[in-house]
Amino acid sequence: MSMHDQKTVAIVGGSGYAGGEFLRLALNHPHLNVTQVTSERNAGAMVSMVHPNLRGRTNLKFRRGAELDEADIIVLALPHGHAAHRIAEFEAKGKVIVDLSADFRLKDPEVYRATYGEAHPAPDTLGDWVYGNPELHREDLRGATRIACAGCFATSVILALYPLLKLGVLLPKDIIATGLVGSSAAGASASDSSHHPERAGSLRVYKPVGHRHTAEARQELPGHFPLHLTAISTPRVRGILTTAQAWIPDGYSDRDVWSAYREVYAQEPFIRIVKVARGIHRYPDPMLLDGTNYCDIGFEMDQDTGRVVLMSAIDNLVKGTAGHAIQSLNIALDWPETTGLEFAGLHPA
Amino acid sequence: MSMHDQKTVAIVGGSGYAGGEFLRLALNHPHLNVTQVTSERNAGAMVSMVHPNLRGRTNLKFRRGAELDEADIIVLALPHGHAAHRIAEFEAKGKVIVDLSADFRLKDPEVYRATYGEAHPAPDTLGDWVYGNPELHREDLRGATRIACAGCFATSVILALYPLLKLGVLLPKDIIATGLVGSSAAGASASDSSHHPERAGSLRVYKPVGHRHTAEARQELPGHFPLHLTAISTPRVRGILTTAQAWIPDGYSDRDVWSAYREVYAQEPFIRIVKVARGIHRYPDPMLLDGTNYCDIGFEMDQDTGRVVLMSAIDNLVKGTAGHAIQSLNIALDWPETTGLEFAGLHPA
Amino acid sequence: MSMHDQKTVAIVGGSGYAGGEFLRLALNHPHLNVTQVTSERNAGAMVSMVHPNLRGRTNLKFRRGAELDEADIIVLALPHGHAAHRIAEFEAKGKVIVDLSADFRLKDPEVYRATYGEAHPAPDTLGDWVYGNPELHREDLRGATRIACAGCFATSVILALYPLLKLGVLLPKDIIATGLVGSSAAGASASDSSHHPERAGSLRVYKPVGHRHTAEARQELPGHFPLHLTAISTPRVRGILTTAQAWIPDGYSDRDVWSAYREVYAQEPFIRIVKVARGIHRYPDPMLLDGTNYCDIGFEMDQDTGRVVLMSAIDNLVKGTAGHAIQSLNIALDWPETTGLEFAGLHPA
Amino acid sequence: MSMHDQKTVAIVGGSGYAGGEFLRLALNHPHLNVTQVTSERNAGAMVSMVHPNLRGRTNLKFRRGAELDEADIIVLALPHGHAAHRIAEFEAKGKVIVDLSADFRLKDPEVYRATYGEAHPAPDTLGDWVYGNPELHREDLRGATRIACAGCFATSVILALYPLLKLGVLLPKDIIATGLVGSSAAGASASDSSHHPERAGSLRVYKPVGHRHTAEARQELPGHFPLHLTAISTPRVRGILTTAQAWIPDGYSDRDVWSAYREVYAQEPFIRIVKVARGIHRYPDPMLLDGTNYCDIGFEMDQDTGRVVLMSAIDNLVKGTAGHAIQSLNIALDWPETTGLEFAGLHPA
Repeated sequence: MSMHDQKTVAIVGGSGYAGGEFLRLALNHPHLNVTQVTSERNAGAMVSMVHPNLRGRTNLKFRRGAELDEADIIVLALPHGHAAHRIAEFEAKGKVIVDLSADFRLKDPEVYRATYGEAHPAPDTLGDWVYGNPELHREDLRGATRIACAGCFATSVILALYPLLKLGVLLPKDIIATGLVGSSAAGASASDSSHHPERAGSLRVYKPVGHRHTAEARQELPGHFPLHLTAISTPRVRGILTTAQAWIPDGYSDRDVWSAYREVYAQEPFIRIVKVARGIHRYPDPMLLDGTNYCDIGFEMDQDTGRVVLMSAIDNLVKGTAGHAIQSLNIALDWPETTGLEFAGLHPA
Repeated sequence: MSMHDQKTVAIVGGSGYAGGEFLRLALNHPHLNVTQVTSERNAGAMVSMVHPNLRGRTNLKFRRGAELDEADIIVLALPHGHAAHRIAEFEAKGKVIVDLSADFRLKDPEVYRATYGEAHPAPDTLGDWVYGNPELHREDLRGATRIACAGCFATSVILALYPLLKLGVLLPKDIIATGLVGSSAAGASASDSSHHPERAGSLRVYKPVGHRHTAEARQELPGHFPLHLTAISTPRVRGILTTAQAWIPDGYSDRDVWSAYREVYAQEPFIRIVKVARGIHRYPDPMLLDGTNYCDIGFEMDQDTGRVVLMSAIDNLVKGTAGHAIQSLNIALDWPETTGLEFAGLHPA
Repeated sequence: MSMHDQKTVAIVGGSGYAGGEFLRLALNHPHLNVTQVTSERNAGAMVSMVHPNLRGRTNLKFRRGAELDEADIIVLALPHGHAAHRIAEFEAKGKVIVDLSADFRLKDPEVYRATYGEAHPAPDTLGDWVYGNPELHREDLRGATRIACAGCFATSVILALYPLLKLGVLLPKDIIATGLVGSSAAGASASDSSHHPERAGSLRVYKPVGHRHTAEARQELPGHFPLHLTAISTPRVRGILTTAQAWIPDGYSDRDVWSAYREVYAQEPFIRIVKVARGIHRYPDPMLLDGTNYCDIGFEMDQDTGRVVLMSAIDNLVKGTAGHAIQSLNIALDWPETTGLEFAGLHPA
Repeated sequence: MSMHDQKTVAIVGGSGYAGGEFLRLALNHPHLNVTQVTSERNAGAMVSMVHPNLRGRTNLKFRRGAELDEADIIVLALPHGHAAHRIAEFEAKGKVIVDLSADFRLKDPEVYRATYGEAHPAPDTLGDWVYGNPELHREDLRGATRIACAGCFATSVILALYPLLKLGVLLPKDIIATGLVGSSAAGASASDSSHHPERAGSLRVYKPVGHRHTAEARQELPGHFPLHLTAISTPRVRGILTTAQAWIPDGYSDRDVWSAYREVYAQEPFIRIVKVARGIHRYPDPMLLDGTNYCDIGFEMDQDTGRVVLMSAIDNLVKGTAGHAIQSLNIALDWPETTGLEFAGLHPA
């Protein structure tokens, strides 16, 4: 490949897990050339000191944010609120901006305020951003220059529910989505709650109510169904398994759910419907998805009650963050959509 | 203690996890003297070959079921269906019978047939049995001679919901209970689904609908609320964490939920309400309960929607099986209710 | 039991894992009455906020160290160096002092200096202390008023090797002891190295050479064999599995090793020789020991080379710390040696 | 790529973990075209039923061994002994044969007999095979048509020791290598020892002495050093961490070890020397290697005693089996050596 097929990339805030994962994927992407990674805390150190899986893969060093040069693509992997406060600075440095945080996901500044407890720092810019979910916004993403990467738990909820809500397969009753989340979702900073002896064996309900991704999911899903989220941390490091409890009308069956998923997702390269009659891998399981960009989706019905249990599994750092962002970039820049996202996942794992 | 304060105990089917756990607890119980443990597969072997935690604690050997002698108390830890088929045989050998299986839990033979797919082998005896849940049936348990130990997932669901349903705190809407279950709940026999490389990292939805404990929970809970169960296996070995999603009327608050739990459970020795404003141990977590007979219960409300998330945690083999059985026996035989169940649990664990 | 059979206990530095474990065991000990627990960081808080397994078991609150009152027994669970610097203060408050740190384990101030990199703060007092290992120092412990609790890794090494070195069963060649250690051994403070996503899946060689417990083990073991330690952290929370590679003379066999262990450990209440010809629990495994005071010991010989692999397993917080301390106290105060240490351990676990 | 750049591949015995891993890697390899996968047990089923990570990646179905057609490359992933007994059959079907079992690794039939307890079924063919370790046998592998893939534990031992033995950096004293092994190394068949409740928390010394890979390692390593192996299973699914305890002469230092590794491994694409002064990733850790073909190597010296601890980490199914085989094939068939083995590994993982 000649160099002019490549875009330069700067990752801002590259010492966390989201930035590190974007870097890992980008190093394997023929059209992306990461030339800068910033980190205040690690400036001057080899990137592979912080992301030891990249030993021998890159000689990049962290630089300070103040040293950020221009790049074709700027990827923001900053703590909540930082991207929005400094967005003008980043717009001056690059044409295409991908934000991995929640700063530009919500369209309505009032919803942002209600969700994050403060006024949005740049409400006038919110309309510029495309919500980075290819399955819902593929057309909007073509040529997009502002991509707000979807939240990880939100993605698992949205992808499980979208076809059924779009096609009216569900009754307008409360939907309860329970997410089982790996520890990497809380980030790379050590804390009492991430201390291994306290966390390794725990099943911890960390957000029984009030999860912030509720706002994203409600914004993106068709209809005005009451949607409720509960989040529980598990001993896994990566992955989210979501079960969404919903209701379908009398007379509907498995086939109607199958049909809806097929109709909407038939051409999706990263969605697999997993519902197998026998064996031990009958439904989606995040165990199989570490490092992949898949969202596996399954379901089961209770014929007696009309309850349908929808299930989705993702790697929170890939389809939930960096892979989703790469997929969105591939669309925005008119590259084959699966470029750089070919890893199949391991078994056993 | 003099020997006449002790009852002899025979454990029938003692090579599984339920029988082994009963044995462990009984060896530490001043009023129980286990004199027989049967196992067809391991007859002749030291009990501690199969339950290696009991090395140095007992010299008992397994005998065949055909060699069963009389005992004051017969504890049945047999696979599903065996106890009911052979109940007359066991009644001839002991006065007090404790069944750890599901055979005698359901009162209605038709519900049994619908749940387990076959006619009950001894429907006339169902009325003799007390459902082994002290919190609901303490008075019935006094002097009881037939105790049908409650199911593990059912116990976690029942104890979370009982006070609120009894006191009418919940709206009559669908309740969704999701159980995160450890691998020991599937028993001591190796299978493809329990193979470590397939199971260690998995979050496996093994019963999205149709869990058999639904019948037990519906039988025991007051009112006729629609109750729905989903069961997911986790990488833990022991423990169940249940979240039950329910609804409370406008104008109700946290305090009403607190009050209901306090009113009903104030004197319960093995129920703790866990709801802490700060720190990392804010809600029930099975991590803290391995080996203990506690059921920890917590809750959180979403003021905007009236949704209340109830949480309960138990050790499936103790409060979910053998400990619950010992507690029931303590009541039946008029011993202090906590006898032999004093272990506090470990932290960290 | 009447109150005059009890000794009052103050735990100094009770918010860590060692202090918490001592408290858990003491609450279940008929002769120990914990009346004070100090913690600078948590002063004023309920003890059960930090040690949530003790909810409902104690209403003690943490107090500041400056508020320490007199007690019959003072248990020091302080960071390295603190106990030795403040020993006069503690001697004024209690007659019997148990130190869980490394401060008083080494007899020779020069060895202390070489091991810990600084001069011992109170070298003249070192002779007052008994090394808290009942298997080696039972007679010294009777009536002792200064007990320096043995280190956890050191304990596993010493107990595996002691009988063979004492009876001259080993060749005077290098002995290599490799310890696989759970994360609780690093304490209760969160750090980058204990961050769950970095630790959950890791096998981390954290002390290939230079482990400080080498000095303890060399001090306590008979003969002057060259002894070398390597420590590796594992995904477990509790437990140490040590394999010690040693050599026996031509003509020696399994029986000689068996005999040595039997001769020395025949009457030991907490040592079990685990060496089973078949099944899956053939050698010591820390999985079975969480919460117990056992040290399980096993071995295997390579007839061709004279190599013998000695194995030992303990719970680092019980036989490795707090349980060992309780056992030592039981001897010192002339109570039955197993008092308060009866827990058999769980299976499965 | 045109079709004539591809070789057809048949995987014989493709339902196990080794065959599945070879298939995963081959599906991502531009020069390999897997056209057949055999399995007696799963004949007729989709390959992705058994290897669910390959859903959507292949439509291959298992066929019976009797249906094996010709292929350019035949990969044997059969249980011990099967390949050797049937080697004539396979030689008739393909020009290049790669055996993933131990059947053709040992050059000396007497060593085979002593190691595997029976006479080799085809001793005259042993000389045809190249031991599939590119670091030691790269030149022999060029154009090779019989490749005996190296054993996983043996590989970790050999790669840690080879440069130091080749260059004479070690003293001729006993070397002790301890391997911490993941559960996938025992294969895909469920057994009592792989039952999750018995295995999840265990540290099980499964081969304290007598590990069969000792013969391989002794065959391949220069000199006639006494080499001793101990193998312990850990809660990980994949990965081996080996620590080898060896001795260097007076006057040698870290630099001599560094130099030896650099001299021998400087051009190796899959070996990384990991020895970092600070941070939490200072030495090799299998956590970082799942799915990769790397062997990370590190070391530390004890200046006082001349002991040097060598460490190596691999993924047992990749560098330990299928990746090593692909790397060998790449050399044999004159493709770039890293083709199909580019995955960098995950962090966190």
